[in-house]
Amino acid sequence: MGKLKTLSKLKVAIYGVSGYAGYELYKTLKRHRKVEIEYVTADSSAGKKISEIYPTTDDRRILKNEEVDVGGLDAVFLSLPHGAARGVVEKIVGKSPSTKIIDLSADYRFDDADEYEKWYGQKHTSPDFLEDFVYGLTEVNREAIRKSRFVANPGCYPTAAILGVYPLLKAKLIDLSYPIIIDAKSGVTGAGRKPELRLLFAEVNENLSPYNIGYVHRHTGEIEQELKKVAGTAITIVFSPHLVPITRGMLNTIYVKIPTELATEDLTNIFRKTYHDEAFVNVLSGSSIATFQHTINTNLCVISVKKVENSPFAIIVSSIDNLGKGAAGQAVQNFNVMFELAESEGLV
Amino acid sequence: MGKLKTLSKLKVAIYGVSGYAGYELYKTLKRHRKVEIEYVTADSSAGKKISEIYPTTDDRRILKNEEVDVGGLDAVFLSLPHGAARGVVEKIVGKSPSTKIIDLSADYRFDDADEYEKWYGQKHTSPDFLEDFVYGLTEVNREAIRKSRFVANPGCYPTAAILGVYPLLKAKLIDLSYPIIIDAKSGVTGAGRKPELRLLFAEVNENLSPYNIGYVHRHTGEIEQELKKVAGTAITIVFSPHLVPITRGMLNTIYVKIPTELATEDLTNIFRKTYHDEAFVNVLSGSSIATFQHTINTNLCVISVKKVENSPFAIIVSSIDNLGKGAAGQAVQNFNVMFELAESEGLV
Amino acid sequence: MGKLKTLSKLKVAIYGVSGYAGYELYKTLKRHRKVEIEYVTADSSAGKKISEIYPTTDDRRILKNEEVDVGGLDAVFLSLPHGAARGVVEKIVGKSPSTKIIDLSADYRFDDADEYEKWYGQKHTSPDFLEDFVYGLTEVNREAIRKSRFVANPGCYPTAAILGVYPLLKAKLIDLSYPIIIDAKSGVTGAGRKPELRLLFAEVNENLSPYNIGYVHRHTGEIEQELKKVAGTAITIVFSPHLVPITRGMLNTIYVKIPTELATEDLTNIFRKTYHDEAFVNVLSGSSIATFQHTINTNLCVISVKKVENSPFAIIVSSIDNLGKGAAGQAVQNFNVMFELAESEGLV
Amino acid sequence: MGKLKTLSKLKVAIYGVSGYAGYELYKTLKRHRKVEIEYVTADSSAGKKISEIYPTTDDRRILKNEEVDVGGLDAVFLSLPHGAARGVVEKIVGKSPSTKIIDLSADYRFDDADEYEKWYGQKHTSPDFLEDFVYGLTEVNREAIRKSRFVANPGCYPTAAILGVYPLLKAKLIDLSYPIIIDAKSGVTGAGRKPELRLLFAEVNENLSPYNIGYVHRHTGEIEQELKKVAGTAITIVFSPHLVPITRGMLNTIYVKIPTELATEDLTNIFRKTYHDEAFVNVLSGSSIATFQHTINTNLCVISVKKVENSPFAIIVSSIDNLGKGAAGQAVQNFNVMFELAESEGLV
Repeated sequence: MGKLKTLSKLKVAIYGVSGYAGYELYKTLKRHRKVEIEYVTADSSAGKKISEIYPTTDDRRILKNEEVDVGGLDAVFLSLPHGAARGVVEKIVGKSPSTKIIDLSADYRFDDADEYEKWYGQKHTSPDFLEDFVYGLTEVNREAIRKSRFVANPGCYPTAAILGVYPLLKAKLIDLSYPIIIDAKSGVTGAGRKPELRLLFAEVNENLSPYNIGYVHRHTGEIEQELKKVAGTAITIVFSPHLVPITRGMLNTIYVKIPTELATEDLTNIFRKTYHDEAFVNVLSGSSIATFQHTINTNLCVISVKKVENSPFAIIVSSIDNLGKGAAGQAVQNFNVMFELAESEGLV
Repeated sequence: MGKLKTLSKLKVAIYGVSGYAGYELYKTLKRHRKVEIEYVTADSSAGKKISEIYPTTDDRRILKNEEVDVGGLDAVFLSLPHGAARGVVEKIVGKSPSTKIIDLSADYRFDDADEYEKWYGQKHTSPDFLEDFVYGLTEVNREAIRKSRFVANPGCYPTAAILGVYPLLKAKLIDLSYPIIIDAKSGVTGAGRKPELRLLFAEVNENLSPYNIGYVHRHTGEIEQELKKVAGTAITIVFSPHLVPITRGMLNTIYVKIPTELATEDLTNIFRKTYHDEAFVNVLSGSSIATFQHTINTNLCVISVKKVENSPFAIIVSSIDNLGKGAAGQAVQNFNVMFELAESEGLV
Repeated sequence: MGKLKTLSKLKVAIYGVSGYAGYELYKTLKRHRKVEIEYVTADSSAGKKISEIYPTTDDRRILKNEEVDVGGLDAVFLSLPHGAARGVVEKIVGKSPSTKIIDLSADYRFDDADEYEKWYGQKHTSPDFLEDFVYGLTEVNREAIRKSRFVANPGCYPTAAILGVYPLLKAKLIDLSYPIIIDAKSGVTGAGRKPELRLLFAEVNENLSPYNIGYVHRHTGEIEQELKKVAGTAITIVFSPHLVPITRGMLNTIYVKIPTELATEDLTNIFRKTYHDEAFVNVLSGSSIATFQHTINTNLCVISVKKVENSPFAIIVSSIDNLGKGAAGQAVQNFNVMFELAESEGLV
Repeated sequence: MGKLKTLSKLKVAIYGVSGYAGYELYKTLKRHRKVEIEYVTADSSAGKKISEIYPTTDDRRILKNEEVDVGGLDAVFLSLPHGAARGVVEKIVGKSPSTKIIDLSADYRFDDADEYEKWYGQKHTSPDFLEDFVYGLTEVNREAIRKSRFVANPGCYPTAAILGVYPLLKAKLIDLSYPIIIDAKSGVTGAGRKPELRLLFAEVNENLSPYNIGYVHRHTGEIEQELKKVAGTAITIVFSPHLVPITRGMLNTIYVKIPTELATEDLTNIFRKTYHDEAFVNVLSGSSIATFQHTINTNLCVISVKKVENSPFAIIVSSIDNLGKGAAGQAVQNFNVMFELAESEGLV
């Protein structure tokens, strides 16, 4: 991007502003000093103001997806239901060949359409696009993201899980003859803004519910695919998500087998070295443990690691805000990388 | 009821067990030592077990409304949507002339079908039944309830409001030239078990929302009707409900103008005298104030009253569990009265 | 402030960073582009890092109050317990005659030391300072704040109450022969960060508690004092705070008698006109009602007003974040006014 | 106990009624038809009524521990801080040799005083009493409990953990070369009723905090001791408790290595067979997963078990109410066993 370009603002559209991630994107990009939000869409709420669907005084008007004139847009953010991105991607590719796309759905996260079909239970609508998208875990794929026009923003659980496992896995310190066990806890916005009985206040409040535990949840495949690339070999994941009575936030408690001689301090140093230059990954010292509150309302991933005293295992605790680093925050971070802006612009 | 009858158990049916109030009724009646629950129904969940719709291990099977054989039933509890009771009432009246009916909907709470239509925005389906139903606020109408076969169980807000205002109103101590202002706070189950966006955890949590404030909420008419009977004159109510991030419970903060000379202690004594023999209405001493926790999971109404130091007003705080005294608890209390059982049987 | 001054950053200190309001101040001022935080203090936590007392990765070191070198500071923010400001004020006045002071305690909010003593139950420690402090309700006292070196930042309840009543009171549209009834609901951080039983999660959760209702709560006097100035006559307040199970946020439901002929739309227009140029006061249209979520994590005050259908009363609902506009946000807003910066700098 | 004895009521005392478990005991025993509560104590609240320390209208007077006349008591329940039971036990043994004791502290749960010292960090005050106490996990030790005069009621985490692991461990189906990983989630009342910053609403709400993870938490030793007895061999436990923003309830997600050929159905059948005759342990079918809400406000332990699809591991989810089966409920269940009453008397 030329120097002149950065003086003017980058024009963007947000598709799917009615969901929790889409609305978070909107609020984040409004604070971004290099961005002009040209369009916000949501087919289900088209014609309404944002103040009619969220408790805010923001009277911005919501459009239909088809009302967006993609020509002249520098970038679009897609926060649509799984399977719905294809149409928008085709339109942009056809009509506006320089517009960049950051897709927050799972549609382009898999390298392989069969894997998508296996985990999402539906045929992929545009398998031919898969190879053009880069998996947007910023800290792991920054250079590829920088060069790419198409980024598939990671899922929330995978973001916390991969960042938590990455340093030890890359250093070949995890004994992969044992599974990596990820006991995950998520706030409710991770399930989206849908009128379902199981998401009602009176069902979620004073409750904590494991769901899709073992090897069932869709994000398992995404975690496996990315960790396999890091390890260079197959990996066994046991992944157990739990719904907790919290609006936003996420924490993964991860159990891995490691060489006995590594102490908490050694482990912490490995994490610190790996993430030394990262603005959005913080590693706590051994005596502190990451909690939800470390990251809520931020784009941070906060990690603590601890050797188990009586056995050759480490417990890694990895916390993100599912709407921050787990969705909208990371999307904006990737946007900043793609346009060579300061990576923290618009982010907390 | 003859002596022999009490030795055997009373047979009942619960219509509408899938709602929060219906399920609470079921749990309460299961603990009732004189009751045998013959049928539980919910058209929307018919064929399922209770354990399939609530987090419980109770495998009781749910039937369709029409599957109930009303003959031989001693009583039925109706916890159906407004407007739906009529069909069941007709069936019972036609086929089982001794079965008693306790209806938890608003259908038979009004004396006048026009008032119902005004507040509920729909024509009454069975205005001819209205005069047969007794308004089931136990402490106020106990004798009429005892003699009646048909009881309209009060709304939750009206129960808390009327019990809070009744003692001073009956004693003619409220200056009715000033409105009675009721600032009410309710837990979420009061809105029913419906998959609506506004009831999602992420919408209700960390939020508190006034709704239908002023002279709009349906319960306003019910409160007015009953207080007018106590006062013997028209009454102006200002009623402002607030949704609070709590599963169950309700509290009304009530402002009334009173004679200046009455002190907190005088007021408390009037309440104590009025409710002296009541097992389910407790009056706190002047220094204590009623809270949600005083009544959650009980059939109690707990009340405190306080003179305002600088002006001729009293603040009455009246707390009930909206699913207890505000719905299922009072229904069972009325049932006990109707069958001349110990009034507290099955209740906490 | 000269032009050159604005090019460099303003140097500030925050006293009392360990409390909820002090920590919020710290987070707000860190985002402020014209501010350099020179010192943060908290006698109780001196020597610790912020990350040791809050779930954050911020390793800023906390000092003792006495360690602050006030010379050269442009401003100090005092977020100390009531009665403790005096010492710091004296030191600053003595040693650094141009440093401005924004005090978030109640110490300098009253015009009259006797009133302070009446409501706070203790002798005022520095009654001679009272007349130098301006009451910092920005929208009402902006010009005085701009010219003053000393600002007493308002209490949270008074901020929401006064902004809610101000437009109608100023327009002489409230019948003051009736009391102004304020039924207030506050999140828990309003009570401070103190290890008290009543503030434990298990006591507050699933509970809602009225406290100090009627004419008892300390903020009653502050509201009365300021409203009296607006009205030019004595005013009767009935003030009933309620503790709600929410971390931050506040909402006042206010009942006032008004001329019968005024409709909701008329009332809304009066509010809109009054606050037309205000960036941080938003008035909702008649059909919408202010909620906690309208203002949480912002410096906004969001207000709705509604005529009661059946009687000459209006219900004003006024929402603020108790830590935002109710404390740290308004303090920074006042700071911006005092230094002639953009009023919204650092604020959301 | 002779037949005549059961006709009159059993006289009991509750020591430590001011804590959450003690108060739950009081509420449970009040509903118990064979019990007369003679004394309730709490040194810290002696002289007060229960209504002064809890939101209730119960005006029962609280005594000092020393005011209890133990003579004539059939049983005492001790819900005192760790280390405090000794004095009461000695007094009872000396003065009232037939009074039975159910101790809810950790003091007599260990077989070995050194283990107690290792985990509790203090010398045991009465090691000589250890062998007289039976570990009161009812379903595992029922016969020993029946015959004993002294019962050490289990900790909450151990109750959920041991009941979750017991069936497979007893059947020798767990590969003990891999650790048993217990990822536990607990409501806040498990931490007791203490005025500590970390337990404040504003700290716990919208947060989820791992603490004492790995091999640090005191309950680890208790779990190890009891599972070792079942296995007949040493066992490696990794135990990670998490504090969740819920008042009461607890859930352990347990990962164990098992023979590959066992399917979810096989596992479920083993659990069903083991707990077939147990009133308070329910095993869900494979498709359902235990949640907090399955057990809150009950004495139930609800368990689900599931084979992980891609690896030879099972995930057992075990839910109890930490104040129910995890404290007061199990204490009353043990009391019922000790006095040969119906085991479910007073319990839900």
